[in-house]
Amino acid sequence: MTTTAIANQQFISSAQILEHWQGHRNLTRRVIDAFPEKELFEFSIGGMRSFAKLAVELVSIAGPALKGIVDHQVEAFSEEAFKPKTKEELLAKWDSETEVINHYFNQISEERFQETFNLFGQYEFPVYQNILYFIDNEVHHRGQGYTYLRALGIEPPFFWERF
Amino acid sequence: MTTTAIANQQFISSAQILEHWQGHRNLTRRVIDAFPEKELFEFSIGGMRSFAKLAVELVSIAGPALKGIVDHQVEAFSEEAFKPKTKEELLAKWDSETEVINHYFNQISEERFQETFNLFGQYEFPVYQNILYFIDNEVHHRGQGYTYLRALGIEPPFFWERF
Repeated sequence: MTTTAIANQQFISSAQILEHWQGHRNLTRRVIDAFPEKELFEFSIGGMRSFAKLAVELVSIAGPALKGIVDHQVEAFSEEAFKPKTKEELLAKWDSETEVINHYFNQISEERFQETFNLFGQYEFPVYQNILYFIDNEVHHRGQGYTYLRALGIEPPFFWERF
Repeated sequence: MTTTAIANQQFISSAQILEHWQGHRNLTRRVIDAFPEKELFEFSIGGMRSFAKLAVELVSIAGPALKGIVDHQVEAFSEEAFKPKTKEELLAKWDSETEVINHYFNQISEERFQETFNLFGQYEFPVYQNILYFIDNEVHHRGQGYTYLRALGIEPPFFWERF
């Protein structure tokens, strides 16, 4: 096989990346849950956002972004629609978005992953890059959440435990 | 197309995930470089490792792990081989590993990504899951590095700038 043939071969299927993402989301849910109520909404380091605020960003991206991709609808990004006051409320939204993500993700075809889409009218990239960005952005912010937990003297969940 | 057919379709090619990973590695390099020399090796929050130590973990995984996968060689994980004393030394190793990663990654076939491998004699998972783990682990630790930089009053590089 030539190098070019190898370069174009499949790395993962769409079912595999979805399972991978939902595994990450399970872990992020545990990180949210590991925070005491007050610190979830108030604690921060170096002027960064609270972990509740970071989690609201994450639920404001995933479902709405996939819906936008599937419906070919360009709507501006907004975190205004959801303002949780408690951990319970945040976790309930997290759980309901799990189904929203599965619902829309499963409607994206192989061809579509390679097409460019102007996400939120702002991020014009191939759909697969947008989806990888959602996952990376979650892992990135969760890494910040781990640091908050350590600073609070709380042992974070195991990074490798996803299901 | 049935749901099953959609589930088994390609999400990304091997060339795309390699480019994606190297983009992340470019960003991690910028994060290493953003630390002042002393803080890179000494600063930490909540008893965590310094960012130099986290970066040594990352270079001790990527190249050696891919070599192990390609050579079907199970060797225990070790961070003992590389003990940088300066940022310059760490960045030089980071750069030389870029080529090592490309070299070995391009020898992994589509079939191999789906085969189980006992990485470092410890992590028995399909090869694609091991590779996603290397990337996620890097994004995770880099998120901690961002928090260190913020705590030090240093503006981190833009998360979306990869090349």
